[in-house]
Amino acid sequence: MKVPIEPLENAYRLLNPGAVVLVSVGDGERDNLFPVTWNMPIRKDPGMVALLSGKTHFSYRFFEQTGQFGLGVPDGSLADAVLGCGRTSGRQVPDKFARFGLTREAPEVIAAPRVAECVGNLECEVERIVDLDRSSIVIGRIVAAAADPAHFAGGEYTFEHGLELLHHLGGERFALTTRDLRATPPTRNKG
Amino acid sequence: MKVPIEPLENAYRLLNPGAVVLVSVGDGERDNLFPVTWNMPIRKDPGMVALLSGKTHFSYRFFEQTGQFGLGVPDGSLADAVLGCGRTSGRQVPDKFARFGLTREAPEVIAAPRVAECVGNLECEVERIVDLDRSSIVIGRIVAAAADPAHFAGGEYTFEHGLELLHHLGGERFALTTRDLRATPPTRNKG
Repeated sequence: MKVPIEPLENAYRLLNPGAVVLVSVGDGERDNLFPVTWNMPIRKDPGMVALLSGKTHFSYRFFEQTGQFGLGVPDGSLADAVLGCGRTSGRQVPDKFARFGLTREAPEVIAAPRVAECVGNLECEVERIVDLDRSSIVIGRIVAAAADPAHFAGGEYTFEHGLELLHHLGGERFALTTRDLRATPPTRNKG
Repeated sequence: MKVPIEPLENAYRLLNPGAVVLVSVGDGERDNLFPVTWNMPIRKDPGMVALLSGKTHFSYRFFEQTGQFGLGVPDGSLADAVLGCGRTSGRQVPDKFARFGLTREAPEVIAAPRVAECVGNLECEVERIVDLDRSSIVIGRIVAAAADPAHFAGGEYTFEHGLELLHHLGGERFALTTRDLRATPPTRNKG
């Protein structure tokens, strides 16, 4: 069971580790899902994110037409579903949730559904689209966020309960984060 | 010992897993180092990368003045050095390499030194700076790249020899990728 991330300024940390995300788009009638490895936070407060999207992709028009998108952070158990969502197009697969065994969860603010199986979910409103010729950097403001408190607590991921985040290497290969560490801060400079 | 990444179109994959990077800047006289969690590839061929940088940071002017920067991918053993580079400013610390036990390695194309201890290194030329008010998205084209063949082979990371990539969670906490998996591609749609 997920709970809202409060305060919302901590929500960007869902993306800090650089895991692949499942982007959900939808206008209330049709929706779609696709994975994006190339994503990053770009501001803490208000929380903002950036991701790459090819202009010819089926889902691209939703960014412009709805001004909204959702981001879900999958764990390692969803690797096949993530790859499947990336290897198929919404043009051929009308319902990627059904096709890859994922469950729609009601969004809080936007129209695109959340992916229930994800560890955390962000809802974003498009703030700006940076044109890069064949692709764009889509910049969104985080307007709602929720996460599984077993794996994201106090505004940060915790690996105490077996969390494995999924990071894309290339092709069909992914890496898994399996543990965390606390680095030692530098001693103060003298004088 | 690192070897050049060939073909260079595979170099973006050094950043695919979303690890924190050490950015090196320099004009041949002065250099500096700082960690950036918010980074991502944005194109494969030619390889392009994007990263966030605050405009008031000591190093920011180097992007504009030299048009170049280096990226190093640290492994888990460098967590304290990465945190240290982020908790100190080049205004106070004239030589972060010396301060945090890192070694300068000769670059191939740009003026900023490589970090010898990193698993892989990219050299980039600034292509574009996207103004976001207090910060900017700095976009660079990859002009040279090298990696340790024990951990990056055939254009992808391998975890066979104990690689642990370093992913920032927040504050002093990092996650480590420790293993990889191969996902199962979807079966073809019938009809």
